[in-house]
Amino acid sequence: MAPILLNCMGNDHNEYIKQQVHVKNPNLESMEEDVLYHLSLSTKTHNLPEMFGDIKFVCVGGSANRMKAFSQFIHQELKLPGNPEEISDICEGTDRYCMYKVGPVLSLSHGMGVPSISIMLHELIKLLYHAQCRDVVLFRLGTSGGVGLAPGTVVVTDKAVDYSFRPQFEQVVLGKVITRSTELDKGVANELLQCSSELQNIPTVIGNTMCTHDFYEGQGRLDGALCSFSNEEKLDYLKRAYEAGVRNIEMESTVFAAMCYACGLKGSIFNLLVHHFTSRTQSFSPLCSPPCSGCGLCDIAEPF
Amino acid sequence: MAPILLNCMGNDHNEYIKQQVHVKNPNLESMEEDVLYHLSLSTKTHNLPEMFGDIKFVCVGGSANRMKAFSQFIHQELKLPGNPEEISDICEGTDRYCMYKVGPVLSLSHGMGVPSISIMLHELIKLLYHAQCRDVVLFRLGTSGGVGLAPGTVVVTDKAVDYSFRPQFEQVVLGKVITRSTELDKGVANELLQCSSELQNIPTVIGNTMCTHDFYEGQGRLDGALCSFSNEEKLDYLKRAYEAGVRNIEMESTVFAAMCYACGLKGSIFNLLVHHFTSRTQSFSPLCSPPCSGCGLCDIAEPF
Repeated sequence: MAPILLNCMGNDHNEYIKQQVHVKNPNLESMEEDVLYHLSLSTKTHNLPEMFGDIKFVCVGGSANRMKAFSQFIHQELKLPGNPEEISDICEGTDRYCMYKVGPVLSLSHGMGVPSISIMLHELIKLLYHAQCRDVVLFRLGTSGGVGLAPGTVVVTDKAVDYSFRPQFEQVVLGKVITRSTELDKGVANELLQCSSELQNIPTVIGNTMCTHDFYEGQGRLDGALCSFSNEEKLDYLKRAYEAGVRNIEMESTVFAAMCYACGLKGSIFNLLVHHFTSRTQSFSPLCSPPCSGCGLCDIAEPF
Repeated sequence: MAPILLNCMGNDHNEYIKQQVHVKNPNLESMEEDVLYHLSLSTKTHNLPEMFGDIKFVCVGGSANRMKAFSQFIHQELKLPGNPEEISDICEGTDRYCMYKVGPVLSLSHGMGVPSISIMLHELIKLLYHAQCRDVVLFRLGTSGGVGLAPGTVVVTDKAVDYSFRPQFEQVVLGKVITRSTELDKGVANELLQCSSELQNIPTVIGNTMCTHDFYEGQGRLDGALCSFSNEEKLDYLKRAYEAGVRNIEMESTVFAAMCYACGLKGSIFNLLVHHFTSRTQSFSPLCSPPCSGCGLCDIAEPF
């Protein structure tokens, strides 16, 4: 992760978009105050350009603890002054999300699932807009289950696809379903792949990422409270997913890609695989089962 | 909240179901270990019947802080021994959810949105099953936006409906969409209404609760990062929702109702309205805007 940030902070960043973050909502300009309720920030109570105007990279992930650990890691990598242990949560006024700023990098948690990350993204994009940020790149850093790949592999997302392997996101607007593109930035994805080739012990591939709306039945797990299918039917579905280019399954990629695309933001997604879907019943095997099996991969691959 | 728990602990509870919590998954019986990954619990590492066998009421809500405050409140109401300030998070091994047990009451957070509460419900229902719990009632306690009702009102859910006002939940299973009933327990809902009539200053109604998959465009908010509709179109949608019996909008009710129904659990939902949807742009007005406007309703209505 750090190499791409360091590269981008130098001359290479000139290749990125040189434009202000924009919103697609004409109402915002005429509002006296914009309350970013779930971030516990507001245009009236906070000086957003002063607080966030220098942001160039936003890294988001599900877990609050992980995103704190990530911000401390980036603090060290960028050799910033001060004690990384003392980085404070900018959203401490709420327990919905947490947010840490280290130099030009903002690290946020988004919880689990499309609705949860969607709320955060609406308010994050408005934050970047109000702060008059320019040339921002967004990354989603996740852990997920792999399809046909060993745990420990990193998947950089080519296309974010839905449960039918289509590169689209269905959004309900006032009761009507509209379809949005989930195209991600190919330049950033390729740069991530290039960076990974310089790291030891982290096999990295590019592939499609399937986004589901639940963890058990939608992802073919056999160990939920409800399960109406056989192992054979599960494996058949995963095989069809693999043939459609799916290499991992998680729960946020389509809306992340759709909102980045709709707002003209460069977005990229990469996931560390912590298990695979061919095991019989266990959700997490052999990695990352509690208690930690001590496989060491988390340490090698950094804590996100 | 407390009166219904106290009532149910007495003779009235005899009217409730007298059956063990069951799952609809034949695989679970033959599994050597069931890891409830997102709760940081497992059948091998924890004695679930000993830890949870006496649970009769499970109360779930989005915010971790609120559910901790709720468990402390119930601790006091039930006059349990010990210091309520010292109640510890049973899921402290993970930051996905938090869980507190006070006597026969389990208080859990579930994050925001259908996918997030769905993961928790799968693992909670398996927990109750492994713990051999009997006669359990589930409550979802939320805050939400009201439709045609003043902030400060409590809505007890009659039917949980989707964005088209249909009492159903669409679940994707191995790429196929299936439809589940969102029927809730009428007896528990009526008992909640009866309890509320004994409380001062908390107007309570029964009505339909609409569940959306996002907070901004799906609920007709004009102040998201994306907004493609006019105030008139928004009001027209809300009017149609009102005519279909919708009295509040939130983001978890349909899957809560569907999973309770599918697993034979008595479930009920009630929400405190913290704002209404007719305001021009502000998401939260006049209550619960940060910083707290000090309206006092949160205190009157208890902190959940």
